[in-house]
Amino acid sequence: MTDHHRIKGVLSPVVTPFAADLATDPERFVRQCRWLLSQNVGLAVFGTNSEANSLSVEEKIELLDRLVAAGLDPARMMPGTGCCALPDSVRLTAHAMKVGCGGVLMLPPFYYKGLSDDGLFRSFAEVIERVGESRLRVYVYHIPPVAQVPITLGVVERLLAKYPAQIAGMKDSGGDWNNTKAFIDAFGTSGFDVFAGSETFLLQNMRNGGAGCISATANVNPGPIAHLFDTWKHADADAQQARLDVIRGIFQKFPMIPALKAAIAHHGRDVSWATVRPPLVALTSAQSSALVGELDRQKFTMPGLAAR
Amino acid sequence: MTDHHRIKGVLSPVVTPFAADLATDPERFVRQCRWLLSQNVGLAVFGTNSEANSLSVEEKIELLDRLVAAGLDPARMMPGTGCCALPDSVRLTAHAMKVGCGGVLMLPPFYYKGLSDDGLFRSFAEVIERVGESRLRVYVYHIPPVAQVPITLGVVERLLAKYPAQIAGMKDSGGDWNNTKAFIDAFGTSGFDVFAGSETFLLQNMRNGGAGCISATANVNPGPIAHLFDTWKHADADAQQARLDVIRGIFQKFPMIPALKAAIAHHGRDVSWATVRPPLVALTSAQSSALVGELDRQKFTMPGLAAR
Repeated sequence: MTDHHRIKGVLSPVVTPFAADLATDPERFVRQCRWLLSQNVGLAVFGTNSEANSLSVEEKIELLDRLVAAGLDPARMMPGTGCCALPDSVRLTAHAMKVGCGGVLMLPPFYYKGLSDDGLFRSFAEVIERVGESRLRVYVYHIPPVAQVPITLGVVERLLAKYPAQIAGMKDSGGDWNNTKAFIDAFGTSGFDVFAGSETFLLQNMRNGGAGCISATANVNPGPIAHLFDTWKHADADAQQARLDVIRGIFQKFPMIPALKAAIAHHGRDVSWATVRPPLVALTSAQSSALVGELDRQKFTMPGLAAR
Repeated sequence: MTDHHRIKGVLSPVVTPFAADLATDPERFVRQCRWLLSQNVGLAVFGTNSEANSLSVEEKIELLDRLVAAGLDPARMMPGTGCCALPDSVRLTAHAMKVGCGGVLMLPPFYYKGLSDDGLFRSFAEVIERVGESRLRVYVYHIPPVAQVPITLGVVERLLAKYPAQIAGMKDSGGDWNNTKAFIDAFGTSGFDVFAGSETFLLQNMRNGGAGCISATANVNPGPIAHLFDTWKHADADAQQARLDVIRGIFQKFPMIPALKAAIAHHGRDVSWATVRPPLVALTSAQSSALVGELDRQKFTMPGLAAR
């Protein structure tokens, strides 16, 4: 399958800014997304790291509309639209199509556990049928540590057979390279684009025919991750990967979402960014200091963030 | 704490009827709820067995409004209002208060796993604060096999200390009697009402100071379960419990929600009741026949259902 408009490269599950009263903050969100695009990173808004499931459908629709109204290119957007309830997934996915998003990243319904392949297939199929758009591009989202509902090879095989145009790829956040490779090996030649769930696997993914990565830490280290995507065939690629791994490793010592927000608050000189919605809890000031200190020792910067 | 209007007894997480196109069916829903009340069973609508997380917030609000408009007593209703997103939980809980529900059954936010007690406490506290109703009665919902986010003794202790009026009790669907008993022992004397998550533990729960049960199989066997609640001090209580366990055991051989709906479809002579929303899958006809056959051998009936 040839599709020149396919999303490739590095995307960020953009963290969502909240006001002190926990309301969403569309202005800060637009500025953050514009900054990420300036770093050559696409917008996988409403992902796990966006606290997407802590937002109502209405809030997500408003945030997406604000990005488009601000002139950001919807072809660079892959919003998360998979919800537990079919009507919510249909509504969000249809809205993403209406505003021209390049694709959608779709969680399976994640309340019931131990689902059958039949039930999972039908969940995705009903959304695709109801949205009814040939230009829809669905990336299925495999994140068993959180959703506890895995996407199987069998489900993707059935989906690709029935919806070859709409089933565009996946994000694999399972943390198991062998699983990522199994999906590339099984479906890569059908034009199924496999995004690694973090830059830890970016180089490996590119060398094996993957499409890029969608990573939490692309919120804070976007430029260097995007640079590795652009230059993965260069001689210094392994050295770049090692450097990315050091930065990612620092963030992984802390609860990821609060840590991303703490780094943005610090480097963007805007303390309000540290706010998370429950059930998450912000880093303590001791944790924030430890994070910032470790990043400083690595001469970590976020170029252009404070000026955004 | 004395509160004569407290919900006690047996409640059913009412299964939600869908049309062939998977739309909710408010008329069938009202008829089903009226029948359950006629069997002396309260209405824990929008529970796990209601496929509540497969419904949008708007659908739940409409269904609740239809029950109240049909004249069913909201004091007998304990709708599930706990969602992943704070604004959704606030909206549903406020609506339940507005229409006069006797209480609400509140899941924790269930997308993120490994939550801190702090994050869980804050999740419930924000809903209570934002709804801002002294007559709110919250029953926290512990169902780790599905939600994968347990409610701890520590969280309930903190909630009770801060919101002694609003924190009314819990439903324990963990399947571990020792956990149920630990909550009764810790908080029962504070007026915290512990409902067992199935009638399997009903007699044990009553003998230890519990408040009743909220059970999937109260959808299909409501009268006998409610009778045990009414007569648990009688000499035949253990025999009643054993008989309830036989019927429950049959349902437990099948996927529970599709099995409940299949039994209602058969005994209510209305095949459309068998419809489930994805990601669930209806029983096969072979499974339905096996279920009905096993129930028939136990002379199982659903009195008044076909006439409802």
